[in-house]
Amino acid sequence: MSLRKTYYFDSNATTSVAPEVLQAMLPFLTEKWGNPSSPYRLGKSLVEPIQAARESVAALIGASFTEVIFTSCGTESINTAITSCLYAQPTKQHVVTSAVEHSATKNCCAALEERGYQVTYLPVNRDGSLDLELFERSLQPDTAVVSIMWANNETGVLFPISKISAICRQRGILVHTDAVQVPGKLAIDVNELGVDLLSLSAHKLHGPKGVGLLYVRKGTPFRGLIVGGHQEERHRGGTENVPYLVAFGRAAELAHAVSADSQRKLAGLRDKLESDILREIPQTVRNGAKEPRLPNTTSIAFAGVEAEALLMLLDQVDICASSGSACTTGSVAPSHVLTAMGLSPAEARSTIRFSLDYETTEEDVAYLMSQLPRVIAELRAAASPRAVARLNSGKLATQAV
Amino acid sequence: MSLRKTYYFDSNATTSVAPEVLQAMLPFLTEKWGNPSSPYRLGKSLVEPIQAARESVAALIGASFTEVIFTSCGTESINTAITSCLYAQPTKQHVVTSAVEHSATKNCCAALEERGYQVTYLPVNRDGSLDLELFERSLQPDTAVVSIMWANNETGVLFPISKISAICRQRGILVHTDAVQVPGKLAIDVNELGVDLLSLSAHKLHGPKGVGLLYVRKGTPFRGLIVGGHQEERHRGGTENVPYLVAFGRAAELAHAVSADSQRKLAGLRDKLESDILREIPQTVRNGAKEPRLPNTTSIAFAGVEAEALLMLLDQVDICASSGSACTTGSVAPSHVLTAMGLSPAEARSTIRFSLDYETTEEDVAYLMSQLPRVIAELRAAASPRAVARLNSGKLATQAV
Repeated sequence: MSLRKTYYFDSNATTSVAPEVLQAMLPFLTEKWGNPSSPYRLGKSLVEPIQAARESVAALIGASFTEVIFTSCGTESINTAITSCLYAQPTKQHVVTSAVEHSATKNCCAALEERGYQVTYLPVNRDGSLDLELFERSLQPDTAVVSIMWANNETGVLFPISKISAICRQRGILVHTDAVQVPGKLAIDVNELGVDLLSLSAHKLHGPKGVGLLYVRKGTPFRGLIVGGHQEERHRGGTENVPYLVAFGRAAELAHAVSADSQRKLAGLRDKLESDILREIPQTVRNGAKEPRLPNTTSIAFAGVEAEALLMLLDQVDICASSGSACTTGSVAPSHVLTAMGLSPAEARSTIRFSLDYETTEEDVAYLMSQLPRVIAELRAAASPRAVARLNSGKLATQAV
Repeated sequence: MSLRKTYYFDSNATTSVAPEVLQAMLPFLTEKWGNPSSPYRLGKSLVEPIQAARESVAALIGASFTEVIFTSCGTESINTAITSCLYAQPTKQHVVTSAVEHSATKNCCAALEERGYQVTYLPVNRDGSLDLELFERSLQPDTAVVSIMWANNETGVLFPISKISAICRQRGILVHTDAVQVPGKLAIDVNELGVDLLSLSAHKLHGPKGVGLLYVRKGTPFRGLIVGGHQEERHRGGTENVPYLVAFGRAAELAHAVSADSQRKLAGLRDKLESDILREIPQTVRNGAKEPRLPNTTSIAFAGVEAEALLMLLDQVDICASSGSACTTGSVAPSHVLTAMGLSPAEARSTIRFSLDYETTEEDVAYLMSQLPRVIAELRAAASPRAVARLNSGKLATQAV
């Protein structure tokens, strides 16, 4: 690994494990290695740390500790939420979701369609927003669950979850939200949101990769996806990953302690980066609405630039960013999120997501802006004359917001 | 935690994380914290360590690295295996399993029955063995999968997996085996076994809790249970738990390096413990056949003794053992494994499992035998006179093997 500083603008992909989190979990990889279900001290002594972690993650989202299930990742949480609603209500065979969900929801739904279930994928507007009237018309008597993300991982655009929940509650339809990108960036209160199920992942909030959370509101019918022993009140089998549960608890405490002031500061830094790019680099456009949006994310199309080439050049100067979800990397298709918003494949392929974090500093943003205009200019200069001519026709510039 | 030595006889419940394993994984919780799907060095540099881990776990079972899928635990692997066979063959709705499986298989099958699938639970004989003729008669034209454990976690009794595979192959029926208890204790060769799918869990072989493996033979139809991003060749979504994958790889290397000589030594130690107990403590009986059996496990019924009370007294003198699967602890029902073998509920409740490991020494066994006869005598003396009288009628002694 390089000893040079990394300028990390990809916090929506993952975050580092916080030192406090690592310290909290390490004893459970060394001397405290028992099985929490065992009847002797080496095992039983692990019950209390797990309970403390459970209370910390519940507190982060305003839930009771009896309403949270530890899972192995956000993807498992999301798959469990959607299938549970179907299996627990066997006469209902229909799912409503959006066209811009993370692949965990998108591909879970595709697999369910293959098995005979019906899924409605709601379109979004150019700014990434949902049409709530269209949403309401999509609901059917046999709709088992509406699964809509709170914050889009590529654009940061927020969906009106509490409005969606209110509409569904009137009709007796369960609501799940993928809130994986939200902790530490917005305050989370499951009662304000009104959702029945909510998914989180520890590695987006300085916990380790490999542990997630599923909130299930008290009284919600539930069927587990991973069924085995009595762990998690029989809602999720498998010997508890004690180190990571403890780690998630500590990470949740850190995320919960983030102040509204810090969140405003983060938004300010992101806004500065975004406006600097849009002002200093010609033919750039932000994808998605300015508000409501996560305070840390900006998605920008750089006309005429291939995102993959740009990311490679940025990496050479120690800047980490992404062209969208890490979970779809390697795909030849352009981002389904951006194309659902009406971007052309070429526009989608010219898009970079910058996602900041509390660790991001003004100096980091200044460094990024010291490199980015030059790199973009180089890439555009290297493009074919025909591409440049097409570019200079100004098609994209008219779309700038 | 006590600073006194723990005498650990519960290796089938879990094992400690080996120091080499912890050392191997730690860098991936500190400086190497990227997302392996990311397009920059911090992420891309993780692809090679994951591949190395994949090759190590594949080597442990004689598979190609293209045939193994990392999961979050043995329970996930087992659930994935069984449901995959059903979803990939939608015209087949029947599962064959045994009555003595781990709760991961047992409760997965129960959940499938609730959803309309048909399951046959094969009985076992008093010694824990399967009747292969009965097994063959249980197969139906619509049998999607036979899921039979290789080694029973409570008794160590082995099932004839290669014979089962041969029978199924003739009929085009897929075979999955839960081999969670086997690594390091027997050599594993998926081609000799002839199975199509096989499940493992790292924490039984000195890896961490929270990572498992599913072997899927090349060409086997497959549908994932946790569906999301492109990870694991799209067979299991979710950002890779890089530290634990690396840890599993290292643990697999350690288990693979266990020699046949070490396995014989382990069996010798277990046999000594077992014969010492049966000889020195009256009214004791081994549950299950002497052979074929894992070299590390012995299950013993202590007539007239409540296992839970015995385990508590053993814990007071720093001895860890269990009354069966940790995954069923807290259940009021007696072990389903032992009752399926024909033990009465009282006999099942008087049973202790001792499961050894390479770390178990002759001194450990000597210490256990210095305490166990005294503790058993105390418990029996404390029992009611009526219970003692019933005990002394010698009903159990006639069953001693």
